[in-house]
Amino acid sequence: MKKILSLPSQKLPKIYTMQATKPSLPKGTRDFAPETMAKRNFILNTIREIFQQFGFLPLETPAMEKFDVLTGKYGEEGDKLLFRIFNAGELRNYQPEDYKEKGDAIVKKIADRALRYDLTVPFARFVVMNRNELTFPFKRYQIQPVWRGDSPQKGRYREFYQCDADVVGTESLICEAEIILMIHQTLHRLGIKDFTIKINNRKILAGIAEMMQATGKETDLCVAIDKLDKIGQEKVENELIERGFQQNAIETLRPLLQFQGSNTDKITFLEQFLQTSEVGKKGIAEIKEMTTILQHFSPKTNQPLEAYQTELDITLARGLSYYTGAIFEVKANQVAMGSISGGGRYDNLTGTFGMPNVSGVGFSFGVDRLYDVMEELQLFPKDTLTSTQLLFTNFDATAQQYALPLLYDCRQKGIKAEIFPEHSKLAKQMKYADAKKIPFVVLIGSDEMTSNLLTLKDMNTGEQSKKTWQEIVQLFSTLS
Amino acid sequence: MKKILSLPSQKLPKIYTMQATKPSLPKGTRDFAPETMAKRNFILNTIREIFQQFGFLPLETPAMEKFDVLTGKYGEEGDKLLFRIFNAGELRNYQPEDYKEKGDAIVKKIADRALRYDLTVPFARFVVMNRNELTFPFKRYQIQPVWRGDSPQKGRYREFYQCDADVVGTESLICEAEIILMIHQTLHRLGIKDFTIKINNRKILAGIAEMMQATGKETDLCVAIDKLDKIGQEKVENELIERGFQQNAIETLRPLLQFQGSNTDKITFLEQFLQTSEVGKKGIAEIKEMTTILQHFSPKTNQPLEAYQTELDITLARGLSYYTGAIFEVKANQVAMGSISGGGRYDNLTGTFGMPNVSGVGFSFGVDRLYDVMEELQLFPKDTLTSTQLLFTNFDATAQQYALPLLYDCRQKGIKAEIFPEHSKLAKQMKYADAKKIPFVVLIGSDEMTSNLLTLKDMNTGEQSKKTWQEIVQLFSTLS
Repeated sequence: MKKILSLPSQKLPKIYTMQATKPSLPKGTRDFAPETMAKRNFILNTIREIFQQFGFLPLETPAMEKFDVLTGKYGEEGDKLLFRIFNAGELRNYQPEDYKEKGDAIVKKIADRALRYDLTVPFARFVVMNRNELTFPFKRYQIQPVWRGDSPQKGRYREFYQCDADVVGTESLICEAEIILMIHQTLHRLGIKDFTIKINNRKILAGIAEMMQATGKETDLCVAIDKLDKIGQEKVENELIERGFQQNAIETLRPLLQFQGSNTDKITFLEQFLQTSEVGKKGIAEIKEMTTILQHFSPKTNQPLEAYQTELDITLARGLSYYTGAIFEVKANQVAMGSISGGGRYDNLTGTFGMPNVSGVGFSFGVDRLYDVMEELQLFPKDTLTSTQLLFTNFDATAQQYALPLLYDCRQKGIKAEIFPEHSKLAKQMKYADAKKIPFVVLIGSDEMTSNLLTLKDMNTGEQSKKTWQEIVQLFSTLS
Repeated sequence: MKKILSLPSQKLPKIYTMQATKPSLPKGTRDFAPETMAKRNFILNTIREIFQQFGFLPLETPAMEKFDVLTGKYGEEGDKLLFRIFNAGELRNYQPEDYKEKGDAIVKKIADRALRYDLTVPFARFVVMNRNELTFPFKRYQIQPVWRGDSPQKGRYREFYQCDADVVGTESLICEAEIILMIHQTLHRLGIKDFTIKINNRKILAGIAEMMQATGKETDLCVAIDKLDKIGQEKVENELIERGFQQNAIETLRPLLQFQGSNTDKITFLEQFLQTSEVGKKGIAEIKEMTTILQHFSPKTNQPLEAYQTELDITLARGLSYYTGAIFEVKANQVAMGSISGGGRYDNLTGTFGMPNVSGVGFSFGVDRLYDVMEELQLFPKDTLTSTQLLFTNFDATAQQYALPLLYDCRQKGIKAEIFPEHSKLAKQMKYADAKKIPFVVLIGSDEMTSNLLTLKDMNTGEQSKKTWQEIVQLFSTLS
């Protein structure tokens, strides 16, 4: 101990703790102040409404999961991004000697929980734990934050919300068709009109691997061709060689990488390309069946995929290894940004928890990206901030006493109202109303109290008028 | 290694990991399934509505805070309950040798964040960081989970929601009066009618300490007399002696511990008891001023404290050390349970972050306890679950194709609807509707498709009737 205390580096923290802590946020995290909250709630409420309209019910799971539940589900890189948790108090069970000798083992033992990385794995865990109580197919939505220890950068945070909707316990392709409908309706309701829903099917990708005589190398194939948009054909081919694909396999793949055409053209091309691959043909059949269901939903539509701004993208792979059927990814076309929504079908997510053969399909909206897109395109309505509708001024004790029963009356009638809590000058109270975007202020001075005619100020127009209390209440009942 | 592997206890986990992970929840945490979510949302929406009606705006802060921001705010015991966080990936920066030698220091360095313990300290941190952008008084509400490493027991969890409302930047006692109004209105709206809002003032407690010639020992005094309800007068006095109070100090205190009477009686008693304590008299003045404001709010009320189910409790202290003025605590009288709401005024919460002399007052609802009270008293409305209103049966491909455009039409008209995604037997589909509490089912068989008269089944009464699609849509527009 003596030795440590004599080190100068140990003195610094001591001095620091004597000053007030200068507060800051952990890297990659954010506060949401009221105006931001209002805009975020506009997005979340829209999503929630669509989810409910399609029969999804709400679920919430804990922020922390046992470490074992999360590991091995997100690949090696994902595991490294998990935030582990331990209770400082639990360290007390160990002596300093234990700790110095077996620190690593103790930390692993104590830090046996981690913050959730997404909402899909906790959902699978929930389904398995409640398999006997749930009625299948089970449709749930979940809107909660997730945490990833990524390096923060523009638009990428260490804490962010996900909005997931999943159906488990059915292979019906109605679910896939409804995901396209939900994405389409949500984005249009938010005012985002120019977007593309890219779709593909992992079975098609498996078929392609089969045609390349590279069955079992689907993951390497997916990782490489997923980058076609970003790095181009040549670099994708180089990467495939690095990943051990043969030159003739790449020759086989080339026409597919180069193919351009409509959704219908692509399906025709794939039917030819995959004619000897059973799994590939199944993938095409699924895409076609989903298209037919979309057509049935709105029979007047001739080209349902195009009508719902959906594009078959043969190179779309998506990183997550648990997808086995359809995959989705959505981009806003007017803004340079990653995907704003994505998802897919998984046939064995609950298998890792001992409940095999449960097929599910789901998708997720990225709230932060939707927010940034809407901000950039100025799509937020002006009146998102749910604030006070009416402020009573407060000049002195008499005026305060006069105002309080009226304020009480407001709230009984459902009018959001408040009184400035201190006896202050007009300017300060007006500044308060402005900052809070309160649309109306009731001014109560001695004239007003004598005549019982109150001055109502419209903060948007600046107009003032004299009104009885009944008239003011009347005005608000017509406004809301 | 060899030695370890030969131990039988080491073999067990190895075998276990070869099987599928059997999933479970971390100790003290819970999933909220749809029905529970619906009930919780009923509570949260009620609270949110009242907060907004009183002019509070929403705020959210990150789940994790820097460790320094949280430590020293909740007492020594609180610090031990903090969940520390580290990013497993960051361990990579250290060699195993470093780690074995300086494990403790490394863990402290890496685990420099913790999950928030309450919403008040993050709020104070937010106010200090945004002091130049905010307009004061600043009224915010915040509804988010908090985490504490307590030993879980009935009604006590390691993750639970808090619902806070605070005003900072004013000393106005209107805020205290409005807290009583908000608690009163919220509980009545939830259907909890029999409750007591206990109030006291830390300045009164300081005055009592002064009269006992024990100034500076307020914390010890508070901790002891706070238990009067639970352990009785004698044991409180014993604890005071253990905590170093003199016998004559306890003699001074005794009449106060024994005093019974109405709110008015208690104020009269305190005015006498504290007549030579300046701080004590200030505390009484604050209680009286708050009572007057309540009276002004509803002038017809004769005894405003009693009218709002509020009781002055001289022994109420509340643990948190940052309170300096009014303190509140609410109990539901028909249910044996801890407080369902509480709060108080603090004069220097932002001081620890370098922004002194900002007075604030706030309170919090305990959602889990409200939930348990409402469950025990059966106060939840029957229709809280926001579910699908209408289910279309699905017997075969033809019926499915017939139903899909009608389903599409429903959603366009804002009716929450879904189709059973698979061609199944009637019984299975009815079971699904029952489990999800869907009130109406449209049955579509060959008769229905031929006649365009659909069978509508009311799941509550069991009645079936034949209706055109227009009639069904009409029915739902009158229902909602």
